[in-house]
Amino acid sequence: MAVGSDRFPSMPALAGIRLGTARAGLRSGPGDDLAVIELAPDSVAAAVFTRNAFCAAPVTVAKRHLKVSPSPRWLLINAGNANAGTGQQGIEDALATCRALSDLTQGQPTQILPFSTGVIGEPLPVEKITAALPQALTSLSPQNWENAARAIMTTDTRPKGAVAKVTIGGKAVTIAGIAKGAGMIAPNMATMLAFIGTDAKAAPATLQSLLQTCVGDTFNAITVDGDTSTNDACILMATGQANNPTLDASHPDLDAFRHALHEVCAQLAQAIVRDGEGATKLMRIKVTEAKNETEARQVAFTVANSPLVKTAFFAGDPNWGRILAAVGRAGIDQMVIDDIRIWLDEICIVSGGGRNPDYTETQGQQVMAQDEITVTIALGRGQTQTQVLTCDLSYDYVRINAEYRT
Amino acid sequence: MAVGSDRFPSMPALAGIRLGTARAGLRSGPGDDLAVIELAPDSVAAAVFTRNAFCAAPVTVAKRHLKVSPSPRWLLINAGNANAGTGQQGIEDALATCRALSDLTQGQPTQILPFSTGVIGEPLPVEKITAALPQALTSLSPQNWENAARAIMTTDTRPKGAVAKVTIGGKAVTIAGIAKGAGMIAPNMATMLAFIGTDAKAAPATLQSLLQTCVGDTFNAITVDGDTSTNDACILMATGQANNPTLDASHPDLDAFRHALHEVCAQLAQAIVRDGEGATKLMRIKVTEAKNETEARQVAFTVANSPLVKTAFFAGDPNWGRILAAVGRAGIDQMVIDDIRIWLDEICIVSGGGRNPDYTETQGQQVMAQDEITVTIALGRGQTQTQVLTCDLSYDYVRINAEYRT
Repeated sequence: MAVGSDRFPSMPALAGIRLGTARAGLRSGPGDDLAVIELAPDSVAAAVFTRNAFCAAPVTVAKRHLKVSPSPRWLLINAGNANAGTGQQGIEDALATCRALSDLTQGQPTQILPFSTGVIGEPLPVEKITAALPQALTSLSPQNWENAARAIMTTDTRPKGAVAKVTIGGKAVTIAGIAKGAGMIAPNMATMLAFIGTDAKAAPATLQSLLQTCVGDTFNAITVDGDTSTNDACILMATGQANNPTLDASHPDLDAFRHALHEVCAQLAQAIVRDGEGATKLMRIKVTEAKNETEARQVAFTVANSPLVKTAFFAGDPNWGRILAAVGRAGIDQMVIDDIRIWLDEICIVSGGGRNPDYTETQGQQVMAQDEITVTIALGRGQTQTQVLTCDLSYDYVRINAEYRT
Repeated sequence: MAVGSDRFPSMPALAGIRLGTARAGLRSGPGDDLAVIELAPDSVAAAVFTRNAFCAAPVTVAKRHLKVSPSPRWLLINAGNANAGTGQQGIEDALATCRALSDLTQGQPTQILPFSTGVIGEPLPVEKITAALPQALTSLSPQNWENAARAIMTTDTRPKGAVAKVTIGGKAVTIAGIAKGAGMIAPNMATMLAFIGTDAKAAPATLQSLLQTCVGDTFNAITVDGDTSTNDACILMATGQANNPTLDASHPDLDAFRHALHEVCAQLAQAIVRDGEGATKLMRIKVTEAKNETEARQVAFTVANSPLVKTAFFAGDPNWGRILAAVGRAGIDQMVIDDIRIWLDEICIVSGGGRNPDYTETQGQQVMAQDEITVTIALGRGQTQTQVLTCDLSYDYVRINAEYRT
């Protein structure tokens, strides 16, 4: 199941980026499960990685390689095996795949960034990956975004892509990205990976700062089940081939670029929640009138991750009591129930410590019949607002996660 | 579904306590849904209530009454309606039921403590309750523990009771308790309520301190879905009719009494998890070698509430990677994956950052086939250990919580 349209956008070629795919046979079912992304020389990259204390071997290697060679030439991504919980051998295995690719491309292993998603705790089948590399290289093409988006899928039911265009110093530049993930859930087959490319020329520090800003309220503001993968990664690659004046902190078009990048991140993040495991509904949990960002996010994530709230939405039940109770247990000091107001879309359902007197169950049920719903929670404590995207909790979530390895 | 035996223990009469039940018609289905507990004059009571910031009307009233009259004469409990999210009218309604009972018993309304569990946000049907009170009083008997345990049930599939005996200053005293709850989940029909009586004579401050100590690693160390009710309450009532020398902080048998009270609390808490909504397995999540209690509980609850861990247990899947990943996202600074060891019962499944080399999947599957499993997680950081009880996440959890109001 998934919420909304599954149209993959028309993805343009980006000067300096080619993508190739192949079947390594790590993922069950048909289709390619290995993708390589080639970057032109002098490209730069920014990255954010999982905050899980136990990051997977490819994350460790990718971080290390980025430090040594801030100008990567290749991304190497496999689906079907996460190479996580694999200890020192996992590191060796990730390095071995990088060496195999650098041997084929006459490059430096440290200019290769490895990414893995899939089963945790199984040794990475290095030979299957290296055997598939020549085919992946043969298929390299600037047009291969959708194929690559499909090759990195695991429990995803659809490929995910997004594009934006913007003008920097008079030059047209494009930002295009693909992502996989059907939950922030780990260590199953549902790690979030996002690979975003642009032909813009940008200073590395600016690129990193832009990416960090944009992930905050996009990739870091979605949740399917509150679990965070050991393998999550989001990479922003800039080839510089649009030949714009280098984008740096003082560039007049910085805001325009940030806006476009944010749009791509937001679309990909939303696509992940829409494809959340077992999802039948997309919920925007908007918290307003908070004292600060910390408490706003605390309330939003407590509501978004509440199994009772999520099952009520699955049932189409406008159960405002469950939302109110989740707000109450979010750990915010001195919250006053009488100040809380809650809306389902435009319908005010809670005010003055309980059901809004003007609210009727019929109104609530009409909103709940939709497959996209905004829940707005006003705390009456301040000026800050935030938003988290999530989905409902259905029988299919249990099925997907209970039956996966059995 | 529920895990393990459903035998209700043989509950003895306690001098100074009588229980009565009646049908008020607040809960659908047959059977009594109202219970009253009468305490002899000069009884004392200790109480702990929900930490949800939005507590229900009866919780507010019970707290207020306990402050005014530390020697309550009556507990009045209804199932089927939580009187939560009902604003000022909810307070008035709770007070009205107390007045109705005090009119019938020629007592003070402030000596009555009201408790409610059931649907949130619906007005309390005061008249139905007051109409059933005479029948509840007629049925008063010291033998009525099991009937009362049944009358306070909501999504519970079985009544819950526990008994312990201990000698205080040469006098035999008894502690007996009943509880309801099928999850720490709110605001559905699954609030946790526990009513524990004893014929011991005890100083009020000592009683309160004993109760608070005992709930810490019993009622406050269980979780079904991480949701905390607006109505949770645990009451300890002491009638003093065993005529023991008053139990106070310096009494030589204080430890013996605490031990017996702890046993009753632990049995009731475990019975709640065994009856967790949709539960097919009971899991003890034991965290050892933590630096302190805070981080031990943080890791234990993160694992216990992880939907991925819970669905793996439902599937009987020894998915150590999901446990390891949940430990990794528990928010503990500078955790070292190589130091973590994890056991399923006696089987070491994780060591040195990944799968224990001696572990075989067959061993893990044998443990997972049981309906009670201990997961031990050694952090290698210190000396503190803690334990949390939880259950798995099944299709039935979704069914119970998705279909409830529809």
